[in-house]
Amino acid sequence: MKIVRFKAAGKTRYGALEGQHILEYSGTPYSTFKKGRRRWPVKQVVLLTPAVPSKIVCVGLNYRDHAEEMALPIPEEPALFFKPLTALCGPDDPIVYPALSSRVDYEAELAIVIRKRCRQVPVERAREYILGYTCLNDVTARDIQMRDRLPSRAKAFDTFCPVGPCIASGIDPNVVEIETWVNGERRQAGSSKAFIFPVEDLVARTSAVMTLLPGDLISTGTPAGVGPLVPGDRVEVRIEGIGSLKNPVIKL
Amino acid sequence: MKIVRFKAAGKTRYGALEGQHILEYSGTPYSTFKKGRRRWPVKQVVLLTPAVPSKIVCVGLNYRDHAEEMALPIPEEPALFFKPLTALCGPDDPIVYPALSSRVDYEAELAIVIRKRCRQVPVERAREYILGYTCLNDVTARDIQMRDRLPSRAKAFDTFCPVGPCIASGIDPNVVEIETWVNGERRQAGSSKAFIFPVEDLVARTSAVMTLLPGDLISTGTPAGVGPLVPGDRVEVRIEGIGSLKNPVIKL
Repeated sequence: MKIVRFKAAGKTRYGALEGQHILEYSGTPYSTFKKGRRRWPVKQVVLLTPAVPSKIVCVGLNYRDHAEEMALPIPEEPALFFKPLTALCGPDDPIVYPALSSRVDYEAELAIVIRKRCRQVPVERAREYILGYTCLNDVTARDIQMRDRLPSRAKAFDTFCPVGPCIASGIDPNVVEIETWVNGERRQAGSSKAFIFPVEDLVARTSAVMTLLPGDLISTGTPAGVGPLVPGDRVEVRIEGIGSLKNPVIKL
Repeated sequence: MKIVRFKAAGKTRYGALEGQHILEYSGTPYSTFKKGRRRWPVKQVVLLTPAVPSKIVCVGLNYRDHAEEMALPIPEEPALFFKPLTALCGPDDPIVYPALSSRVDYEAELAIVIRKRCRQVPVERAREYILGYTCLNDVTARDIQMRDRLPSRAKAFDTFCPVGPCIASGIDPNVVEIETWVNGERRQAGSSKAFIFPVEDLVARTSAVMTLLPGDLISTGTPAGVGPLVPGDRVEVRIEGIGSLKNPVIKL
Protein backbone atom coordinates (compact mmCIF):
# COMPACT_ATOMS: atom_id res chain seq x y z
CA MET A 1 0.00 0.00 0.00
CA LYS A 2 1.17 3.53 -0.79
CA ILE A 3 -0.22 6.05 1.69
CA VAL A 4 -0.37 9.71 0.63
CA ARG A 5 -1.40 12.89 2.41
CA PHE A 6 -2.82 15.52 0.12
CA LYS A 7 -4.80 18.69 -0.18
CA ALA A 8 -7.92 18.68 -2.32
CA ALA A 9 -11.00 20.90 -2.33
CA GLY A 10 -9.49 22.99 0.50
CA LYS A 11 -8.99 20.08 2.91
CA THR A 12 -6.05 17.94 4.01
CA ARG A 13 -6.82 14.26 3.42
CA TYR A 14 -5.20 10.82 3.49
CA GLY A 15 -5.48 8.23 0.78
CA ALA A 16 -3.96 5.28 -1.06
CA LEU A 17 -2.08 5.95 -4.28
CA GLU A 18 -3.30 3.65 -7.06
CA GLY A 19 -1.60 4.54 -10.33
CA GLN A 20 -2.88 7.94 -11.47
CA HIS A 21 -5.60 8.05 -8.81
CA ILE A 22 -5.88 8.37 -5.06
CA LEU A 23 -8.53 6.47 -3.15
CA GLU A 24 -9.45 8.61 -0.14
CA TYR A 25 -9.31 7.11 3.37
CA SER A 26 -10.86 8.44 6.56
CA GLY A 27 -9.00 8.65 9.88
CA THR A 28 -5.21 8.49 9.93
CA PRO A 29 -2.75 5.65 9.30
CA TYR A 30 -1.80 5.87 12.98
CA SER A 31 -5.30 5.03 14.29
CA THR A 32 -8.40 3.90 12.43
CA PHE A 33 -7.81 4.07 8.71
CA LYS A 34 -10.83 3.26 6.56
CA LYS A 35 -11.15 3.03 2.82
CA GLY A 36 -13.60 5.64 1.50
CA ARG A 37 -15.36 5.92 -1.85
CA ARG A 38 -14.00 9.16 -3.22
CA ARG A 39 -11.30 8.92 -5.88
CA TRP A 40 -9.10 11.87 -6.86
CA PRO A 41 -6.90 12.14 -9.96
CA VAL A 42 -3.33 12.71 -8.69
CA LYS A 43 -3.02 15.65 -11.09
CA GLN A 44 -5.86 17.50 -9.38
CA VAL A 45 -4.49 17.38 -5.83
CA VAL A 46 -1.45 18.77 -4.02
CA LEU A 47 0.66 16.03 -2.44
CA LEU A 48 1.95 16.96 1.03
CA THR A 49 4.71 15.43 3.17
CA PRO A 50 3.14 12.00 3.76
CA ALA A 51 4.10 12.03 7.48
CA VAL A 52 3.82 14.80 10.07
CA PRO A 53 6.73 14.01 12.41
CA SER A 54 7.55 15.34 15.87
CA LYS A 55 11.21 14.71 15.06
CA ILE A 56 13.43 13.82 12.12
CA VAL A 57 16.29 11.55 13.20
CA CYS A 58 19.11 11.20 10.68
CA VAL A 59 21.96 8.72 10.55
CA GLY A 60 25.39 10.03 9.64
CA LEU A 61 27.02 7.10 7.94
CA ASN A 62 25.13 3.92 7.12
CA TYR A 63 26.46 2.58 3.79
CA ARG A 64 29.55 0.40 3.58
CA ASP A 65 30.38 1.75 0.08
CA HIS A 66 30.06 5.38 1.24
CA ALA A 67 32.28 4.67 4.29
CA GLU A 68 34.91 3.14 1.97
CA GLU A 69 34.67 6.08 -0.47
CA MET A 70 35.22 8.52 2.41
CA ALA A 71 37.95 6.30 3.99
CA LEU A 72 35.99 6.25 7.25
CA PRO A 73 35.89 3.34 9.69
CA ILE A 74 32.62 1.37 9.94
CA PRO A 75 30.85 2.86 13.01
CA GLU A 76 29.87 0.66 15.94
CA GLU A 77 26.81 2.82 16.69
CA PRO A 78 24.83 4.92 14.23
CA ALA A 79 25.94 8.58 14.46
CA LEU A 80 22.67 10.45 14.95
CA PHE A 81 21.65 14.04 14.32
CA PHE A 82 18.36 15.85 13.85
CA LYS A 83 16.80 18.06 11.22
CA PRO A 84 14.24 20.63 12.46
CA LEU A 85 10.60 20.40 11.33
CA THR A 86 10.87 23.82 9.67
CA ALA A 87 13.15 22.15 7.08
CA LEU A 88 10.31 19.91 5.84
CA CYS A 89 8.80 20.36 2.41
CA GLY A 90 6.66 18.14 0.19
CA PRO A 91 6.78 16.74 -3.34
CA ASP A 92 7.26 19.47 -5.99
CA ASP A 93 7.94 22.15 -3.34
CA PRO A 94 11.01 24.25 -4.16
CA ILE A 95 14.31 23.74 -2.35
CA VAL A 96 15.48 27.28 -1.63
CA TYR A 97 19.22 27.75 -2.21
CA PRO A 98 20.37 29.89 0.74
CA ALA A 99 22.41 33.06 0.37
CA LEU A 100 24.78 31.79 3.10
CA SER A 101 26.02 28.83 1.04
CA SER A 102 27.73 28.34 -2.28
CA ARG A 103 27.71 24.52 -2.25
CA VAL A 104 24.43 22.70 -1.67
CA ASP A 105 24.35 18.91 -2.11
CA TYR A 106 21.59 16.33 -2.57
CA GLU A 107 21.64 13.19 -0.39
CA ALA A 108 19.10 10.53 -1.37
CA GLU A 109 17.83 8.57 1.63
CA LEU A 110 15.21 6.00 2.55
CA ALA A 111 13.29 7.17 5.63
CA ILE A 112 11.43 4.95 8.09
CA VAL A 113 7.99 6.22 9.22
CA ILE A 114 7.05 5.20 12.77
CA ARG A 115 3.52 3.80 13.23
CA LYS A 116 3.09 3.87 16.99
CA ARG A 117 4.69 5.22 20.12
CA CYS A 118 7.57 3.05 21.27
CA ARG A 119 10.75 2.95 23.29
CA GLN A 120 13.41 0.31 23.84
CA VAL A 121 12.13 -1.86 21.00
CA PRO A 122 13.99 -5.16 20.53
CA VAL A 123 15.31 -5.68 16.96
CA GLU A 124 13.01 -8.66 16.40
CA ARG A 125 9.90 -6.56 17.13
CA ALA A 126 10.98 -3.41 15.25
CA ARG A 127 8.75 -4.06 12.21
CA GLU A 128 5.61 -3.81 14.40
CA TYR A 129 6.36 -0.13 14.96
CA ILE A 130 7.08 0.78 11.34
CA LEU A 131 4.26 2.13 9.18
CA GLY A 132 6.35 2.13 6.00
CA TYR A 133 9.07 3.89 4.06
CA THR A 134 9.40 7.11 2.10
CA CYS A 135 12.00 9.08 0.11
CA LEU A 136 13.90 11.86 1.89
CA ASN A 137 16.42 14.27 0.43
CA ASP A 138 18.86 15.25 3.21
CA VAL A 139 19.85 18.50 1.46
CA THR A 140 23.12 19.82 2.91
CA ALA A 141 25.08 23.07 2.61
CA ARG A 142 28.38 21.22 2.27
CA ASP A 143 30.58 24.31 2.61
CA ILE A 144 28.93 25.15 5.95
CA GLN A 145 29.18 21.53 7.11
CA MET A 146 32.92 21.57 6.38
CA ARG A 147 33.43 24.81 8.35
CA ASP A 148 31.28 23.84 11.37
CA ARG A 149 32.32 21.07 13.66
CA LEU A 150 28.70 19.81 13.66
CA PRO A 151 26.39 18.92 10.74
CA SER A 152 23.18 20.39 12.17
CA ARG A 153 23.35 23.99 10.91
CA ALA A 154 24.32 22.91 7.38
CA LYS A 155 21.31 20.59 7.19
CA ALA A 156 18.73 22.78 8.96
CA PHE A 157 17.85 25.42 6.35
CA ASP A 158 14.15 25.83 5.54
CA THR A 159 13.15 23.46 2.66
CA PHE A 160 16.26 21.27 3.17
CA CYS A 161 14.14 18.21 4.00
CA PRO A 162 11.89 17.22 1.08
CA VAL A 163 9.89 14.08 1.97
CA GLY A 164 7.50 11.97 -0.11
CA PRO A 165 5.70 11.15 -2.30
CA CYS A 166 4.11 8.32 -0.29
CA ILE A 167 4.64 5.90 2.60
CA ALA A 168 5.12 2.47 1.06
CA SER A 169 4.51 -0.68 3.06
CA GLY A 170 5.04 -4.26 1.97
CA ILE A 171 8.55 -3.70 0.62
CA ASP A 172 11.83 -5.05 1.97
CA PRO A 173 13.65 -1.78 2.82
CA ASN A 174 17.00 -3.53 3.21
CA VAL A 175 17.25 -4.58 -0.46
CA VAL A 176 16.10 -1.63 -2.57
CA GLU A 177 17.82 0.61 -5.11
CA ILE A 178 18.20 4.28 -4.08
CA GLU A 179 19.00 6.92 -6.69
CA THR A 180 19.30 10.65 -7.25
CA TRP A 181 18.52 12.10 -10.68
CA VAL A 182 19.30 15.71 -11.54
CA ASN A 183 17.68 17.20 -14.65
CA GLY A 184 16.89 13.68 -15.85
CA GLU A 185 20.45 12.39 -15.41
CA ARG A 186 21.36 9.74 -12.84
CA ARG A 187 23.91 11.13 -10.38
CA GLN A 188 23.75 8.87 -7.31
CA ALA A 189 22.93 5.18 -7.07
CA GLY A 190 23.20 2.66 -4.29
CA SER A 191 21.46 -0.28 -2.73
CA SER A 192 20.26 -0.55 0.84
CA LYS A 193 21.95 -3.98 0.79
CA ALA A 194 25.02 -1.92 1.78
CA PHE A 195 23.35 -0.70 4.99
CA ILE A 196 25.63 -0.96 8.00
CA PHE A 197 22.54 -0.83 10.25
CA PRO A 198 19.37 -2.33 8.67
CA VAL A 199 16.08 -0.56 9.44
CA GLU A 200 15.19 -2.91 12.31
CA ASP A 201 18.51 -2.15 13.95
CA LEU A 202 18.02 1.62 13.55
CA VAL A 203 14.58 1.46 15.21
CA ALA A 204 16.01 -0.61 18.07
CA ARG A 205 19.05 1.61 18.62
CA THR A 206 17.19 4.91 18.25
CA SER A 207 14.36 3.81 20.55
CA ALA A 208 16.97 2.73 23.12
CA VAL A 209 17.74 6.44 23.49
CA MET A 210 14.46 8.23 22.84
CA THR A 211 10.74 7.59 22.65
CA LEU A 212 9.54 7.42 19.04
CA LEU A 213 6.11 8.86 18.21
CA PRO A 214 3.66 8.18 15.35
CA GLY A 215 4.87 9.89 12.19
CA ASP A 216 8.46 10.30 13.41
CA LEU A 217 11.05 9.83 10.67
CA ILE A 218 14.34 7.96 10.90
CA SER A 219 16.35 8.64 7.77
CA THR A 220 18.78 5.85 7.01
CA GLY A 221 21.79 7.70 5.56
CA THR A 222 22.95 8.21 1.98
CA PRO A 223 24.94 5.94 -0.36
CA ALA A 224 28.11 6.93 -2.24
CA GLY A 225 27.92 9.65 -4.89
CA VAL A 226 26.61 12.81 -3.24
CA GLY A 227 27.03 15.93 -5.35
CA PRO A 228 26.02 19.54 -5.92
CA LEU A 229 22.80 21.25 -6.94
CA VAL A 230 22.48 24.67 -8.55
CA PRO A 231 19.46 26.98 -8.83
CA GLY A 232 17.34 25.89 -11.78
CA ASP A 233 18.02 22.17 -11.23
CA ARG A 234 15.26 19.66 -10.86
CA VAL A 235 16.32 16.99 -8.34
CA GLU A 236 14.65 13.63 -7.93
CA VAL A 237 15.10 10.93 -5.28
CA ARG A 238 13.92 7.57 -6.64
CA ILE A 239 13.53 4.51 -4.47
CA GLU A 240 12.45 1.14 -5.80
CA GLY A 241 8.98 0.20 -4.51
CA ILE A 242 8.33 3.71 -3.11
CA GLY A 243 8.44 6.17 -6.00
CA SER A 244 9.97 9.45 -7.01
CA LEU A 245 10.34 12.64 -4.96
CA LYS A 246 10.89 15.60 -7.28
CA ASN A 247 11.82 19.15 -6.24
CA PRO A 248 12.98 22.18 -8.19
CA VAL A 249 15.91 24.20 -6.80
CA ILE A 250 15.35 27.95 -6.73
CA LYS A 251 17.15 31.05 -5.48
CA LEU A 252 15.06 33.81 -3.94
CA MET B 1 7.04 39.25 34.53
CA LYS B 2 7.50 35.53 35.19
CA ILE B 3 5.23 33.41 33.00
CA VAL B 4 4.44 29.86 34.13
CA ARG B 5 2.49 27.01 32.57
CA PHE B 6 0.87 24.74 35.10
CA LYS B 7 -1.69 22.05 35.75
CA ALA B 8 -4.36 22.74 38.35
CA ALA B 9 -7.81 21.23 38.85
CA GLY B 10 -7.26 18.91 35.87
CA LYS B 11 -6.51 21.69 33.35
CA THR B 12 -3.35 23.15 31.78
CA ARG B 13 -3.21 26.90 32.42
CA TYR B 14 -0.91 29.89 32.05
CA GLY B 15 -0.18 32.43 34.73
CA ALA B 16 2.20 34.94 36.26
CA LEU B 17 4.37 33.83 39.17
CA GLU B 18 4.11 36.28 42.07
CA GLY B 19 6.05 35.00 45.07
CA GLN B 20 4.24 31.92 46.44
CA HIS B 21 1.19 32.45 44.25
CA ILE B 22 0.29 32.27 40.57
CA LEU B 23 -2.13 34.74 39.06
CA GLU B 24 -3.96 32.94 36.26
CA TYR B 25 -4.01 34.42 32.74
CA SER B 26 -6.29 33.51 29.84
CA GLY B 27 -5.04 32.98 26.29
CA THR B 28 -1.37 32.29 25.65
CA PRO B 29 1.72 34.50 25.85
CA TYR B 30 2.04 34.14 22.06
CA SER B 31 -1.32 35.74 21.30
CA THR B 32 -3.81 37.50 23.57
CA PHE B 33 -2.70 37.14 27.17
CA LYS B 34 -5.13 38.54 29.74
CA LYS B 35 -4.83 38.80 33.48
CA GLY B 36 -7.54 36.77 35.21
CA ARG B 37 -8.80 36.81 38.80
CA ARG B 38 -8.01 33.33 39.99
CA ARG B 39 -4.94 32.92 42.22
CA TRP B 40 -3.31 29.54 42.88
CA PRO B 41 -0.80 28.76 45.63
CA VAL B 42 2.34 27.42 43.84
CA LYS B 43 2.35 24.42 46.21
CA GLN B 44 -1.07 23.29 44.99
CA VAL B 45 -0.25 23.17 41.26
CA VAL B 46 2.10 21.19 39.04
CA LEU B 47 4.51 23.42 37.12
CA LEU B 48 5.01 22.28 33.52
CA THR B 49 7.69 23.20 30.96
CA PRO B 50 6.84 26.90 30.54
CA ALA B 51 7.21 26.73 26.72
CA VAL B 52 5.95 24.13 24.24
CA PRO B 53 8.56 24.31 21.48
CA SER B 54 8.54 22.88 17.96
CA LYS B 55 12.33 22.67 18.20
CA ILE B 56 15.12 23.01 20.75
CA VAL B 57 18.20 24.61 19.22
CA CYS B 58 21.38 24.29 21.28
CA VAL B 59 24.70 26.08 20.95
CA GLY B 60 27.83 24.02 21.37
CA LEU B 61 30.32 26.51 22.75
CA ASN B 62 29.32 30.03 23.79
CA TYR B 63 31.39 30.98 26.87
CA ARG B 64 34.87 32.44 26.57
CA ASP B 65 35.91 30.86 29.91
CA HIS B 66 34.64 27.42 28.87
CA ALA B 67 36.46 27.68 25.52
CA GLU B 68 39.69 28.55 27.39
CA GLU B 69 39.16 25.71 29.90
CA MET B 70 38.74 23.23 27.02
CA ALA B 71 41.61 24.84 25.02
CA LEU B 72 39.26 25.35 22.08
CA PRO B 73 39.42 28.25 19.63
CA ILE B 74 36.68 30.90 19.82
CA PRO B 75 34.17 29.88 17.10
CA GLU B 76 33.27 32.30 14.30
CA GLU B 77 29.75 30.88 14.05
CA PRO B 78 27.74 29.22 16.83
CA ALA B 79 27.98 25.43 16.49
CA LEU B 80 24.34 24.33 16.51
CA PHE B 81 22.66 21.04 17.36
CA PHE B 82 19.16 19.99 18.33
CA LYS B 83 17.57 18.13 21.22
CA PRO B 84 14.36 16.19 20.42
CA LEU B 85 11.06 17.20 22.07
CA THR B 86 10.83 13.79 23.74
CA ALA B 87 13.76 14.88 25.93
CA LEU B 88 11.71 17.66 27.55
CA CYS B 89 10.67 17.50 31.18
CA GLY B 90 9.42 20.07 33.64
CA PRO B 91 10.38 21.35 37.09
CA ASP B 92 10.65 18.53 39.68
CA ASP B 93 10.33 15.83 37.00
CA PRO B 94 12.94 13.10 37.38
CA ILE B 95 15.96 12.90 35.09
CA VAL B 96 16.21 9.19 34.27
CA TYR B 97 19.79 7.91 34.29
CA PRO B 98 20.00 5.62 31.24
CA ALA B 99 21.32 2.07 31.35
CA LEU B 100 23.48 2.83 28.26
CA SER B 101 25.64 5.42 30.07
CA SER B 102 27.88 5.48 33.09
CA ARG B 103 28.71 9.19 32.99
CA VAL B 104 25.85 11.69 32.90
CA ASP B 105 26.67 15.41 33.28
CA TYR B 106 24.64 18.52 34.09
CA GLU B 107 25.04 21.61 31.88
CA ALA B 108 23.32 24.74 33.19
CA GLU B 109 22.08 27.00 30.39
CA LEU B 110 19.98 30.09 29.84
CA ALA B 111 17.40 29.42 27.10
CA ILE B 112 15.73 32.03 24.89
CA VAL B 113 11.98 31.56 24.32
CA ILE B 114 10.76 32.83 20.92
CA ARG B 115 7.58 34.97 20.98
CA LYS B 116 6.59 35.07 17.34
CA ARG B 117 7.38 33.46 14.02
CA CYS B 118 10.46 34.95 12.41
CA ARG B 119 13.24 34.41 9.92
CA GLN B 120 16.31 36.41 8.95
CA VAL B 121 15.97 38.75 11.91
CA PRO B 122 18.56 41.55 12.06
CA VAL B 123 20.49 41.71 15.37
CA GLU B 124 19.01 45.09 16.25
CA ARG B 125 15.46 43.75 16.01
CA ALA B 126 16.06 40.40 17.77
CA ARG B 127 14.52 41.48 21.09
CA GLU B 128 11.11 41.96 19.40
CA TYR B 129 10.94 38.23 18.78
CA ILE B 130 11.98 37.10 22.26
CA LEU B 131 9.28 36.37 24.84
CA GLY B 132 11.76 35.87 27.68
CA TYR B 133 14.31 33.52 29.22
CA THR B 134 14.20 30.26 31.14
CA CYS B 135 16.58 27.74 32.76
CA LEU B 136 17.53 24.65 30.76
CA ASN B 137 19.65 21.71 31.87
CA ASP B 138 21.36 20.27 28.78
CA VAL B 139 21.87 16.85 30.40
CA THR B 140 24.53 14.89 28.50
CA ALA B 141 25.73 11.27 28.57
CA ARG B 142 29.38 12.35 28.39
CA ASP B 143 30.78 8.86 27.75
CA ILE B 144 28.51 8.46 24.72
CA GLN B 145 29.37 11.96 23.47
CA MET B 146 33.06 11.08 23.64
CA ARG B 147 32.54 7.82 21.67
CA ASP B 148 30.22 9.30 18.99
CA ARG B 149 31.50 11.82 16.51
CA LEU B 150 28.28 13.85 17.04
CA PRO B 151 26.71 15.17 20.26
CA SER B 152 23.07 14.46 19.35
CA ARG B 153 22.65 10.89 20.65
CA ALA B 154 24.33 11.69 23.98
CA LYS B 155 21.97 14.61 24.56
CA ALA B 156 18.73 13.06 23.23
CA PHE B 157 17.71 10.64 26.00
CA ASP B 158 14.17 11.02 27.35
CA THR B 159 14.16 13.49 30.32
CA PHE B 160 17.57 14.97 29.30
CA CYS B 161 16.06 18.42 28.76
CA PRO B 162 14.54 19.85 31.97
CA VAL B 163 13.16 23.35 31.34
CA GLY B 164 11.64 25.91 33.73
CA PRO B 165 10.41 27.08 36.14
CA CYS B 166 9.20 30.22 34.33
CA ILE B 167 9.80 32.50 31.37
CA ALA B 168 11.26 35.72 32.76
CA SER B 169 11.05 38.96 30.82
CA GLY B 170 12.51 42.33 31.76
CA ILE B 171 15.98 40.98 32.57
CA ASP B 172 19.22 41.61 30.73
CA PRO B 173 20.15 38.03 29.67
CA ASN B 174 23.69 39.01 28.75
CA VAL B 175 24.73 39.90 32.32
CA VAL B 176 23.27 37.23 34.63
CA GLU B 177 24.83 34.63 36.93
CA ILE B 178 24.23 30.99 35.91
CA GLU B 179 24.83 28.19 38.41
CA THR B 180 24.38 24.48 38.98
CA TRP B 181 23.82 23.19 42.50
CA VAL B 182 23.91 19.46 43.30
CA ASN B 183 22.48 18.32 46.64
CA GLY B 184 22.68 21.89 47.90
CA GLU B 185 26.33 22.40 46.90
CA ARG B 186 27.39 24.82 44.19
CA ARG B 187 29.20 22.95 41.39
CA GLN B 188 29.09 25.24 38.35
CA ALA B 189 29.06 29.02 38.16
CA GLY B 190 29.44 31.47 35.33
CA SER B 191 28.17 34.75 34.01
CA SER B 192 26.54 35.34 30.65
CA LYS B 193 28.93 38.30 30.39
CA ALA B 194 31.31 35.65 28.99
CA PHE B 195 28.92 34.87 26.09
CA ILE B 196 30.74 34.68 22.76
CA PHE B 197 27.39 35.27 21.01
CA PRO B 198 24.91 37.40 23.02
CA VAL B 199 21.23 36.41 22.78
CA GLU B 200 20.45 38.95 20.03
CA ASP B 201 23.25 37.51 17.93
CA LEU B 202 22.00 33.94 18.46
CA VAL B 203 18.47 34.87 17.33
CA ALA B 204 19.88 36.63 14.26
CA ARG B 205 22.24 33.81 13.29
CA THR B 206 19.78 30.99 13.99
CA SER B 207 16.95 32.71 12.12
CA ALA B 208 19.31 33.25 9.18
CA VAL B 209 19.18 29.47 8.76
CA MET B 210 15.72 28.42 9.91
CA THR B 211 12.30 29.87 10.65
CA LEU B 212 11.72 30.22 14.40
CA LEU B 213 8.24 29.57 15.76
CA PRO B 214 6.44 30.73 18.93
CA GLY B 215 7.71 28.73 21.92
CA ASP B 216 10.90 27.56 20.18
CA LEU B 217 13.91 27.39 22.48
CA ILE B 218 17.46 28.50 21.73
CA SER B 219 19.72 27.35 24.53
CA THR B 220 22.79 29.52 24.87
CA GLY B 221 25.49 27.03 25.90
CA THR B 222 27.04 26.21 29.26
CA PRO B 223 29.81 27.96 31.25
CA ALA B 224 32.93 26.26 32.64
CA GLY B 225 32.55 23.62 35.34
CA VAL B 226 30.35 20.85 33.95
CA GLY B 227 30.39 17.69 36.03
CA PRO B 228 28.73 14.36 36.80
CA LEU B 229 25.39 13.37 38.32
CA VAL B 230 24.57 10.08 40.02
CA PRO B 231 21.19 8.50 40.78
CA GLY B 232 19.83 9.95 43.99
CA ASP B 233 21.21 13.45 43.29
CA ARG B 234 19.04 16.52 43.29
CA VAL B 235 20.27 18.93 40.61
CA GLU B 236 19.34 22.58 40.40
CA VAL B 237 19.98 25.15 37.68
CA ARG B 238 19.77 28.67 39.14
CA ILE B 239 19.74 31.80 37.00
CA GLU B 240 19.64 35.30 38.42
CA GLY B 241 16.32 36.97 37.65
CA ILE B 242 14.71 33.75 36.42
CA GLY B 243 14.70 31.26 39.29
CA SER B 244 15.61 27.70 40.12
CA LEU B 245 14.95 24.55 38.08
CA LYS B 246 15.20 21.48 40.35
CA ASN B 247 15.14 17.85 39.25
CA PRO B 248 15.91 14.60 41.04
CA VAL B 249 18.07 12.01 39.26
CA ILE B 250 16.70 8.47 39.34
CA LYS B 251 17.58 5.09 37.88
CA LEU B 252 14.72 2.86 36.71
